[in-house]
Amino acid sequence: MPPELTTPGTGQFPADLRVAVLGGTGPQGKGLARRFAAAGLDVIIGSRSAERAAAAAAELSEATGRPVAGLDNHGAAEAGDVVLVVVPWDGHGELLQELAPTLAGKVVVDCVNPLGFDKQGAFALDVPEGSATQQAAAILTESTVVGAFHNVSAVLLDDPEGKPVDTDVLVLGDEREATDLIQALADTIPGVRGVFGGRRRNARQVEALTANLISANRRYKAHAGIRISDV
Amino acid sequence: MPPELTTPGTGQFPADLRVAVLGGTGPQGKGLARRFAAAGLDVIIGSRSAERAAAAAAELSEATGRPVAGLDNHGAAEAGDVVLVVVPWDGHGELLQELAPTLAGKVVVDCVNPLGFDKQGAFALDVPEGSATQQAAAILTESTVVGAFHNVSAVLLDDPEGKPVDTDVLVLGDEREATDLIQALADTIPGVRGVFGGRRRNARQVEALTANLISANRRYKAHAGIRISDV
Repeated sequence: MPPELTTPGTGQFPADLRVAVLGGTGPQGKGLARRFAAAGLDVIIGSRSAERAAAAAAELSEATGRPVAGLDNHGAAEAGDVVLVVVPWDGHGELLQELAPTLAGKVVVDCVNPLGFDKQGAFALDVPEGSATQQAAAILTESTVVGAFHNVSAVLLDDPEGKPVDTDVLVLGDEREATDLIQALADTIPGVRGVFGGRRRNARQVEALTANLISANRRYKAHAGIRISDV
Repeated sequence: MPPELTTPGTGQFPADLRVAVLGGTGPQGKGLARRFAAAGLDVIIGSRSAERAAAAAAELSEATGRPVAGLDNHGAAEAGDVVLVVVPWDGHGELLQELAPTLAGKVVVDCVNPLGFDKQGAFALDVPEGSATQQAAAILTESTVVGAFHNVSAVLLDDPEGKPVDTDVLVLGDEREATDLIQALADTIPGVRGVFGGRRRNARQVEALTANLISANRRYKAHAGIRISDV
Protein backbone atom coordinates (compact mmCIF):
# COMPACT_ATOMS: atom_id res chain seq x y z
CA MET A 1 0.00 0.00 0.00
CA PRO A 2 1.66 3.26 -1.01
CA PRO A 3 1.59 6.11 1.47
CA GLU A 4 -0.60 9.05 0.56
CA LEU A 5 1.08 11.17 -2.09
CA THR A 6 1.94 14.71 -1.19
CA THR A 7 2.89 17.45 -3.58
CA PRO A 8 6.49 18.67 -3.66
CA GLY A 9 5.03 22.18 -3.58
CA THR A 10 6.45 24.81 -5.88
CA GLY A 11 3.70 27.41 -5.69
CA GLN A 12 0.89 28.49 -7.98
CA PHE A 13 1.27 28.87 -11.72
CA PRO A 14 0.89 32.64 -12.31
CA ALA A 15 -2.52 33.43 -13.81
CA ASP A 16 -1.13 36.12 -16.09
CA LEU A 17 1.19 33.81 -18.04
CA ARG A 18 -0.10 32.64 -21.39
CA VAL A 19 0.61 29.01 -22.27
CA ALA A 20 1.17 28.13 -25.92
CA VAL A 21 1.12 24.52 -27.08
CA LEU A 22 2.94 24.00 -30.39
CA GLY A 23 1.59 20.85 -31.99
CA GLY A 24 -1.58 21.43 -30.04
CA THR A 25 -3.78 19.61 -32.53
CA GLY A 26 -2.04 16.24 -31.96
CA PRO A 27 -3.40 13.93 -29.26
CA GLN A 28 -0.79 14.79 -26.60
CA GLY A 29 -0.77 18.52 -27.33
CA LYS A 30 -4.54 18.78 -27.45
CA GLY A 31 -4.84 16.84 -24.21
CA LEU A 32 -2.44 19.20 -22.45
CA ALA A 33 -4.17 22.28 -23.92
CA ARG A 34 -7.52 20.93 -22.73
CA ARG A 35 -6.26 20.42 -19.19
CA PHE A 36 -4.60 23.83 -18.96
CA ALA A 37 -7.72 25.57 -20.29
CA ALA A 38 -9.86 23.60 -17.84
CA ALA A 39 -7.53 24.81 -15.06
CA GLY A 40 -8.38 28.40 -16.03
CA LEU A 41 -5.12 29.26 -17.82
CA ASP A 42 -4.87 31.32 -20.99
CA VAL A 43 -4.09 28.80 -23.70
CA ILE A 44 -3.00 29.24 -27.31
CA ILE A 45 -2.96 26.22 -29.59
CA GLY A 46 -0.33 26.23 -32.31
CA SER A 47 -0.26 24.02 -35.37
CA ARG A 48 1.35 23.95 -38.80
CA SER A 49 -2.12 24.79 -40.04
CA ALA A 50 -3.79 27.86 -38.53
CA GLU A 51 -7.15 26.43 -39.63
CA ARG A 52 -6.71 23.19 -37.73
CA ALA A 53 -5.47 25.16 -34.73
CA ALA A 54 -8.57 27.35 -34.82
CA ALA A 55 -10.84 24.30 -35.06
CA ALA A 56 -9.16 22.58 -32.08
CA ALA A 57 -9.27 25.86 -30.13
CA ALA A 58 -12.99 26.23 -30.82
CA GLU A 59 -13.58 22.66 -29.66
CA LEU A 60 -11.68 23.21 -26.42
CA SER A 61 -13.35 26.59 -25.81
CA GLU A 62 -16.72 24.90 -26.10
CA ALA A 63 -15.65 22.02 -23.87
CA THR A 64 -14.02 24.07 -21.13
CA GLY A 65 -15.98 27.32 -21.27
CA ARG A 66 -12.70 29.21 -21.53
CA PRO A 67 -11.39 31.28 -24.44
CA VAL A 68 -8.73 29.24 -26.26
CA ALA A 69 -6.88 30.77 -29.23
CA GLY A 70 -5.68 28.87 -32.30
CA LEU A 71 -2.81 30.13 -34.45
CA ASP A 72 -0.03 28.77 -36.62
CA ASN A 73 3.02 27.61 -34.65
CA HIS A 74 4.82 30.89 -35.25
CA GLY A 75 1.90 32.98 -34.01
CA ALA A 76 1.43 30.73 -30.98
CA ALA A 77 5.15 30.90 -30.15
CA GLU A 78 4.92 34.68 -30.28
CA ALA A 79 1.75 34.85 -28.14
CA GLY A 80 2.85 32.46 -25.38
CA ASP A 81 4.92 33.35 -22.33
CA VAL A 82 5.52 29.67 -21.69
CA VAL A 83 5.71 27.61 -24.87
CA LEU A 84 5.26 23.83 -24.92
CA VAL A 85 6.72 21.92 -27.84
CA VAL A 86 4.56 18.85 -28.50
CA VAL A 87 5.39 18.23 -32.15
CA PRO A 88 6.51 15.00 -33.84
CA TRP A 89 10.21 14.22 -33.38
CA ASP A 90 10.57 14.26 -37.14
CA GLY A 91 10.94 17.97 -37.83
CA HIS A 92 11.56 18.97 -34.20
CA GLY A 93 14.95 20.58 -34.82
CA GLU A 94 13.87 22.36 -38.01
CA LEU A 95 10.83 23.91 -36.33
CA LEU A 96 12.89 25.14 -33.39
CA GLN A 97 15.52 26.60 -35.74
CA GLU A 98 12.78 28.60 -37.45
CA LEU A 99 11.21 29.76 -34.20
CA ALA A 100 14.41 30.49 -32.26
CA PRO A 101 14.23 34.30 -32.54
CA THR A 102 10.55 34.27 -31.55
CA LEU A 103 11.19 32.03 -28.55
CA ALA A 104 14.05 34.17 -27.17
CA GLY A 105 13.50 35.13 -23.53
CA LYS A 106 10.73 32.58 -23.00
CA VAL A 107 10.49 29.36 -21.05
CA VAL A 108 10.24 26.55 -23.61
CA VAL A 109 9.03 23.15 -22.44
CA ASP A 110 10.09 20.28 -24.64
CA CYS A 111 7.65 17.35 -24.38
CA VAL A 112 8.92 15.35 -27.34
CA ASN A 113 9.88 11.66 -27.18
CA PRO A 114 12.29 10.55 -29.92
CA LEU A 115 10.92 7.06 -30.49
CA GLY A 116 10.93 4.57 -33.31
CA PHE A 117 8.41 1.79 -33.83
CA ASP A 118 8.73 -1.63 -35.43
CA LYS A 119 7.06 -5.03 -35.09
CA GLN A 120 8.52 -5.43 -31.60
CA GLY A 121 7.06 -2.17 -30.40
CA ALA A 122 8.63 1.16 -29.46
CA PHE A 123 12.30 1.90 -28.95
CA ALA A 124 14.38 4.99 -28.20
CA LEU A 125 16.10 6.77 -31.07
CA ASP A 126 19.62 8.12 -30.74
CA VAL A 127 19.78 11.92 -30.71
CA PRO A 128 23.12 13.59 -31.46
CA GLU A 129 22.60 16.12 -28.68
CA GLY A 130 21.56 13.37 -26.23
CA SER A 131 17.82 14.07 -26.05
CA ALA A 132 15.10 16.20 -27.60
CA THR A 133 15.38 18.53 -24.60
CA GLN A 134 19.12 18.95 -25.12
CA GLN A 135 18.60 19.49 -28.84
CA ALA A 136 16.12 22.24 -28.02
CA ALA A 137 18.59 23.82 -25.59
CA ALA A 138 21.35 23.66 -28.19
CA ILE A 139 19.16 25.47 -30.74
CA LEU A 140 17.30 27.88 -28.45
CA THR A 141 20.30 29.52 -26.84
CA GLU A 142 18.25 32.61 -25.87
CA SER A 143 15.43 30.62 -24.24
CA THR A 144 15.24 28.69 -20.98
CA VAL A 145 14.59 25.08 -21.93
CA VAL A 146 12.84 22.63 -19.62
CA GLY A 147 11.85 19.03 -20.38
CA ALA A 148 8.50 17.78 -19.05
CA PHE A 149 5.22 15.93 -19.78
CA HIS A 150 6.97 13.05 -21.55
CA ASN A 151 5.21 10.13 -19.94
CA VAL A 152 1.60 11.28 -19.64
CA SER A 153 -0.97 9.27 -21.52
CA ALA A 154 -2.54 11.36 -24.30
CA VAL A 155 -5.73 9.33 -23.95
CA LEU A 156 -6.07 10.17 -20.27
CA LEU A 157 -5.21 13.84 -20.81
CA ASP A 158 -7.74 14.31 -23.57
CA ASP A 159 -10.61 13.09 -21.39
CA PRO A 160 -13.60 15.44 -21.87
CA GLU A 161 -14.67 14.87 -18.26
CA GLY A 162 -11.26 15.92 -16.97
CA LYS A 163 -10.85 12.91 -14.70
CA PRO A 164 -7.70 12.98 -12.52
CA VAL A 165 -4.60 11.51 -14.14
CA ASP A 166 -2.68 9.11 -11.92
CA THR A 167 0.85 10.17 -12.79
CA ASP A 168 3.75 12.38 -11.83
CA VAL A 169 5.45 14.63 -14.37
CA LEU A 170 9.24 14.60 -14.18
CA VAL A 171 10.50 18.14 -14.85
CA LEU A 172 14.07 18.48 -16.09
CA GLY A 173 16.13 21.62 -16.30
CA ASP A 174 19.15 23.54 -15.12
CA GLU A 175 17.36 26.74 -14.00
CA ARG A 176 15.47 26.39 -10.74
CA GLU A 177 12.97 29.18 -11.39
CA ALA A 178 11.93 27.60 -14.67
CA THR A 179 11.64 24.04 -13.31
CA ASP A 180 9.60 25.33 -10.35
CA LEU A 181 7.31 27.14 -12.79
CA ILE A 182 6.75 24.05 -14.90
CA GLN A 183 6.20 21.86 -11.84
CA ALA A 184 3.46 24.33 -10.87
CA LEU A 185 2.06 24.06 -14.41
CA ALA A 186 1.95 20.25 -14.10
CA ASP A 187 0.22 20.62 -10.72
CA THR A 188 -2.73 22.36 -12.42
CA ILE A 189 -3.78 18.99 -13.91
CA PRO A 190 -5.95 17.05 -11.45
CA GLY A 191 -4.07 14.08 -10.00
CA VAL A 192 -0.73 15.15 -11.43
CA ARG A 193 2.33 16.27 -9.48
CA GLY A 194 5.29 18.03 -11.02
CA VAL A 195 8.44 16.44 -9.58
CA PHE A 196 11.97 17.71 -10.17
CA GLY A 197 13.78 15.02 -12.14
CA GLY A 198 17.27 16.42 -12.64
CA ARG A 199 19.20 18.44 -15.18
CA ARG A 200 18.73 18.49 -18.93
CA ARG A 201 21.62 16.07 -19.37
CA ASN A 202 19.40 13.46 -17.72
CA ALA A 203 16.42 14.05 -20.03
CA ARG A 204 17.15 11.25 -22.48
CA GLN A 205 16.05 8.43 -20.22
CA VAL A 206 12.82 10.19 -19.24
CA GLU A 207 11.91 10.70 -22.89
CA ALA A 208 12.91 7.13 -23.73
CA LEU A 209 11.00 5.65 -20.78
CA THR A 210 7.86 6.23 -22.82
CA ALA A 211 8.91 3.17 -24.85
CA ASN A 212 8.81 1.08 -21.67
CA LEU A 213 5.40 2.43 -20.76
CA ILE A 214 4.17 1.52 -24.24
CA SER A 215 5.45 -2.03 -23.61
CA ALA A 216 3.61 -2.13 -20.28
CA ASN A 217 0.48 -0.77 -21.98
CA ARG A 218 0.57 -3.65 -24.45
CA ARG A 219 1.15 -6.28 -21.81
CA TYR A 220 -1.39 -5.00 -19.28
CA LYS A 221 -3.88 -3.24 -21.55
CA ALA A 222 -3.30 -0.06 -19.55
CA HIS A 223 -2.52 3.62 -19.91
CA ALA A 224 0.56 3.43 -17.74
CA GLY A 225 2.08 6.44 -16.03
CA ILE A 226 4.78 6.80 -13.41
CA ARG A 227 4.71 7.87 -9.81
CA ILE A 228 7.82 8.77 -7.88
CA SER A 229 7.53 7.19 -4.44
CA ASP A 230 8.83 8.66 -1.16
CA VAL A 231 8.52 12.17 -2.65
CA MET B 1 -5.31 9.76 -4.76
CA PRO B 2 -3.89 6.75 -6.65
CA PRO B 3 -6.11 3.70 -6.99
CA GLU B 4 -5.07 0.69 -4.95
CA LEU B 5 -2.15 -1.06 -6.57
CA THR B 6 -2.70 -4.59 -7.73
CA THR B 7 -0.06 -7.06 -8.70
CA PRO B 8 0.33 -7.96 -12.36
CA GLY B 9 0.46 -11.59 -11.20
CA THR B 10 3.05 -13.90 -12.66
CA GLY B 11 2.88 -16.69 -10.10
CA GLN B 12 5.08 -17.85 -7.24
CA PHE B 13 8.84 -17.92 -7.41
CA PRO B 14 9.71 -21.65 -7.28
CA ALA B 15 11.04 -22.60 -3.84
CA ASP B 16 13.61 -25.01 -5.27
CA LEU B 17 15.52 -22.37 -7.28
CA ARG B 18 18.68 -21.05 -5.65
CA VAL B 19 19.30 -17.33 -6.03
CA ALA B 20 22.90 -16.15 -6.27
CA VAL B 21 23.75 -12.47 -5.86
CA LEU B 22 27.12 -11.57 -7.40
CA GLY B 23 28.41 -8.42 -5.70
CA GLY B 24 26.28 -9.42 -2.72
CA THR B 25 28.49 -7.59 -0.23
CA GLY B 26 27.76 -4.15 -1.74
CA PRO B 27 24.79 -2.16 -0.39
CA GLN B 28 22.39 -3.01 -3.24
CA GLY B 29 23.41 -6.65 -3.49
CA LYS B 30 23.33 -7.21 0.24
CA GLY B 31 19.92 -5.53 0.47
CA LEU B 32 18.52 -7.81 -2.23
CA ALA B 33 20.10 -10.92 -0.65
CA ARG B 34 18.60 -9.93 2.71
CA ARG B 35 15.13 -9.59 1.24
CA PHE B 36 15.29 -12.86 -0.69
CA ALA B 37 16.55 -14.74 2.38
CA ALA B 38 13.82 -13.13 4.48
CA ALA B 39 11.28 -14.35 1.90
CA GLY B 40 12.46 -17.92 2.50
CA LEU B 41 14.52 -18.38 -0.65
CA ASP B 42 17.87 -20.19 -0.86
CA VAL B 43 20.40 -17.41 -1.25
CA ILE B 44 24.10 -17.50 -2.11
CA ILE B 45 26.12 -14.32 -1.74
CA GLY B 46 28.99 -13.92 -4.19
CA SER B 47 31.88 -11.49 -3.86
CA ARG B 48 35.38 -11.04 -5.22
CA SER B 49 36.48 -12.05 -1.74
CA ALA B 50 35.10 -15.36 -0.42
CA GLU B 51 35.89 -14.14 3.10
CA ARG B 52 33.75 -11.02 2.79
CA ALA B 53 30.98 -13.08 1.18
CA ALA B 54 31.07 -15.50 4.10
CA ALA B 55 30.94 -12.64 6.60
CA ALA B 56 27.93 -11.02 4.86
CA ALA B 57 26.23 -14.43 4.58
CA ALA B 58 26.73 -15.05 8.31
CA GLU B 59 25.25 -11.64 9.09
CA LEU B 60 22.19 -12.28 6.92
CA SER B 61 21.74 -15.83 8.29
CA GLU B 62 21.69 -14.40 11.78
CA ALA B 63 19.30 -11.59 10.79
CA THR B 64 16.84 -13.72 8.82
CA GLY B 65 17.12 -17.10 10.54
CA ARG B 66 17.72 -18.70 7.14
CA PRO B 67 20.85 -20.42 5.88
CA VAL B 68 22.70 -18.05 3.52
CA ALA B 69 25.87 -19.19 1.77
CA GLY B 70 28.86 -16.97 0.93
CA LEU B 71 31.27 -17.84 -1.87
CA ASP B 72 33.50 -16.09 -4.38
CA ASN B 73 31.65 -14.83 -7.45
CA HIS B 74 32.60 -17.91 -9.46
CA GLY B 75 31.36 -20.28 -6.79
CA ALA B 76 28.15 -18.32 -6.37
CA ALA B 77 27.56 -18.25 -10.14
CA GLU B 78 28.00 -22.01 -10.19
CA ALA B 79 25.68 -22.60 -7.22
CA GLY B 80 22.83 -20.33 -8.32
CA ASP B 81 19.98 -21.29 -10.64
CA VAL B 82 19.09 -17.63 -11.00
CA VAL B 83 22.11 -15.32 -10.81
CA LEU B 84 21.81 -11.61 -10.08
CA VAL B 85 24.67 -9.37 -11.18
CA VAL B 86 24.93 -6.45 -8.74
CA VAL B 87 28.57 -5.50 -9.27
CA PRO B 88 30.05 -2.06 -10.01
CA TRP B 89 29.79 -1.01 -13.66
CA ASP B 90 33.55 -0.75 -13.79
CA GLY B 91 34.56 -4.37 -14.38
CA HIS B 92 31.04 -5.58 -15.33
CA GLY B 93 32.03 -6.84 -18.78
CA GLU B 94 35.27 -8.48 -17.61
CA LEU B 95 33.54 -10.39 -14.82
CA LEU B 96 30.83 -11.66 -17.17
CA GLN B 97 33.45 -12.73 -19.73
CA GLU B 98 35.14 -14.82 -17.04
CA LEU B 99 31.89 -16.33 -15.80
CA ALA B 100 30.21 -16.92 -19.17
CA PRO B 101 30.81 -20.72 -19.28
CA THR B 102 29.59 -21.05 -15.66
CA LEU B 103 26.46 -19.01 -16.35
CA ALA B 104 25.45 -20.99 -19.44
CA GLY B 105 21.87 -22.26 -19.24
CA LYS B 106 20.95 -20.01 -16.30
CA VAL B 107 18.74 -16.96 -15.95
CA VAL B 108 21.06 -14.00 -15.32
CA VAL B 109 19.53 -10.81 -13.95
CA ASP B 110 21.57 -7.70 -14.62
CA CYS B 111 20.92 -5.01 -12.00
CA VAL B 112 23.79 -2.69 -12.91
CA ASN B 113 23.41 1.03 -13.61
CA PRO B 114 26.19 2.53 -15.72
CA LEU B 115 26.38 5.96 -14.06
CA GLY B 116 29.00 8.64 -13.66
CA PHE B 117 29.13 11.24 -10.91
CA ASP B 118 30.47 14.77 -10.86
CA LYS B 119 29.75 18.00 -8.96
CA GLN B 120 26.34 18.25 -10.64
CA GLY B 121 25.30 14.80 -9.52
CA ALA B 122 24.75 11.56 -11.41
CA PHE B 123 24.53 11.07 -15.14
CA ALA B 124 24.15 8.11 -17.50
CA LEU B 125 27.26 6.69 -19.15
CA ASP B 126 27.26 5.59 -22.77
CA VAL B 127 27.55 1.84 -23.22
CA PRO B 128 28.65 0.51 -26.62
CA GLU B 129 26.05 -2.27 -26.48
CA GLY B 130 23.33 0.20 -25.41
CA SER B 131 22.97 -0.80 -21.75
CA ALA B 132 24.50 -3.03 -19.09
CA THR B 133 21.72 -5.54 -19.76
CA GLN B 134 22.51 -5.62 -23.47
CA GLN B 135 26.22 -5.92 -22.74
CA ALA B 136 25.45 -8.91 -20.52
CA ALA B 137 23.32 -10.46 -23.27
CA ALA B 138 26.07 -9.89 -25.83
CA ILE B 139 28.62 -11.67 -23.61
CA LEU B 140 26.42 -14.39 -22.10
CA THR B 141 25.14 -15.89 -25.33
CA GLU B 142 24.30 -19.20 -23.60
CA SER B 143 22.33 -17.58 -20.74
CA THR B 144 18.92 -15.92 -20.62
CA VAL B 145 19.55 -12.30 -19.63
CA VAL B 146 16.94 -10.18 -17.89
CA GLY B 147 17.34 -6.63 -16.58
CA ALA B 148 15.72 -5.74 -13.24
CA PHE B 149 16.08 -4.14 -9.78
CA HIS B 150 17.72 -0.99 -11.19
CA ASN B 151 15.76 1.64 -9.32
CA VAL B 152 15.33 0.18 -5.86
CA SER B 153 16.89 2.11 -2.99
CA ALA B 154 19.72 0.11 -1.40
CA VAL B 155 19.01 1.85 1.90
CA LEU B 156 15.39 0.72 1.91
CA LEU B 157 16.28 -2.83 0.81
CA ASP B 158 18.90 -3.31 3.49
CA ASP B 159 16.46 -2.50 6.29
CA PRO B 160 16.94 -5.02 9.12
CA GLU B 161 13.23 -4.80 9.97
CA GLY B 162 12.24 -5.67 6.41
CA LYS B 163 9.77 -2.80 6.06
CA PRO B 164 7.80 -2.79 2.77
CA VAL B 165 9.51 -0.95 -0.08
CA ASP B 166 7.23 1.43 -1.97
CA THR B 167 8.40 0.71 -5.51
CA ASP B 168 7.81 -1.32 -8.61
CA VAL B 169 10.61 -3.22 -10.31
CA LEU B 170 10.65 -2.91 -14.08
CA VAL B 171 11.67 -6.27 -15.56
CA LEU B 172 13.15 -6.23 -19.05
CA GLY B 173 13.75 -9.16 -21.32
CA ASP B 174 12.93 -10.93 -24.53
CA GLU B 175 11.97 -14.33 -23.06
CA ARG B 176 8.56 -14.38 -21.40
CA GLU B 177 9.28 -17.31 -19.09
CA ALA B 178 12.35 -15.56 -17.69
CA THR B 179 10.70 -12.15 -17.22
CA ASP B 180 7.73 -13.82 -15.50
CA LEU B 181 10.15 -15.64 -13.19
CA ILE B 182 11.98 -12.44 -12.25
CA GLN B 183 8.72 -10.55 -11.75
CA ALA B 184 7.77 -13.29 -9.29
CA LEU B 185 11.19 -12.88 -7.63
CA ALA B 186 10.56 -9.12 -7.26
CA ASP B 187 7.13 -9.88 -5.81
CA THR B 188 8.77 -11.71 -2.89
CA ILE B 189 9.92 -8.35 -1.46
CA PRO B 190 7.18 -6.77 0.66
CA GLY B 191 5.63 -3.76 -1.09
CA VAL B 192 7.34 -4.46 -4.40
CA ARG B 193 5.68 -5.46 -7.66
CA GLY B 194 7.55 -6.85 -10.62
CA VAL B 195 6.17 -5.15 -13.74
CA PHE B 196 7.09 -6.08 -17.31
CA GLY B 197 8.94 -3.09 -18.77
CA GLY B 198 9.76 -4.19 -22.30
CA ARG B 199 12.57 -5.85 -24.20
CA ARG B 200 16.28 -5.67 -23.46
CA ARG B 201 16.71 -3.01 -26.14
CA ASN B 202 14.73 -0.69 -23.85
CA ALA B 203 16.89 -1.35 -20.77
CA ARG B 204 19.16 1.69 -21.11
CA GLN B 205 16.61 4.23 -19.96
CA VAL B 206 15.56 2.15 -16.97
CA GLU B 207 19.18 1.83 -15.84
CA ALA B 208 19.79 5.54 -16.50
CA LEU B 209 16.62 6.63 -14.70
CA THR B 210 18.49 5.95 -11.47
CA ALA B 211 20.34 9.23 -12.15
CA ASN B 212 16.99 11.06 -12.10
CA LEU B 213 15.97 9.37 -8.88
CA ILE B 214 19.28 10.44 -7.35
CA SER B 215 18.46 14.04 -8.40
CA ALA B 216 15.03 13.73 -6.78
CA ASN B 217 16.61 12.24 -3.66
CA ARG B 218 18.86 15.29 -3.35
CA ARG B 219 16.05 17.77 -3.93
CA TYR B 220 13.47 16.11 -1.67
CA LYS B 221 15.74 14.31 0.81
CA ALA B 222 14.03 11.06 -0.13
CA HIS B 223 14.74 7.50 -1.17
CA ALA B 224 12.74 7.78 -4.35
CA GLY B 225 11.39 4.78 -6.22
CA ILE B 226 8.99 4.42 -9.12
CA ARG B 227 5.49 3.09 -9.36
CA ILE B 228 3.82 2.30 -12.67
CA SER B 229 0.27 3.60 -12.50
CA ASP B 230 -2.79 1.99 -14.13
CA VAL B 231 -1.05 -1.41 -14.00
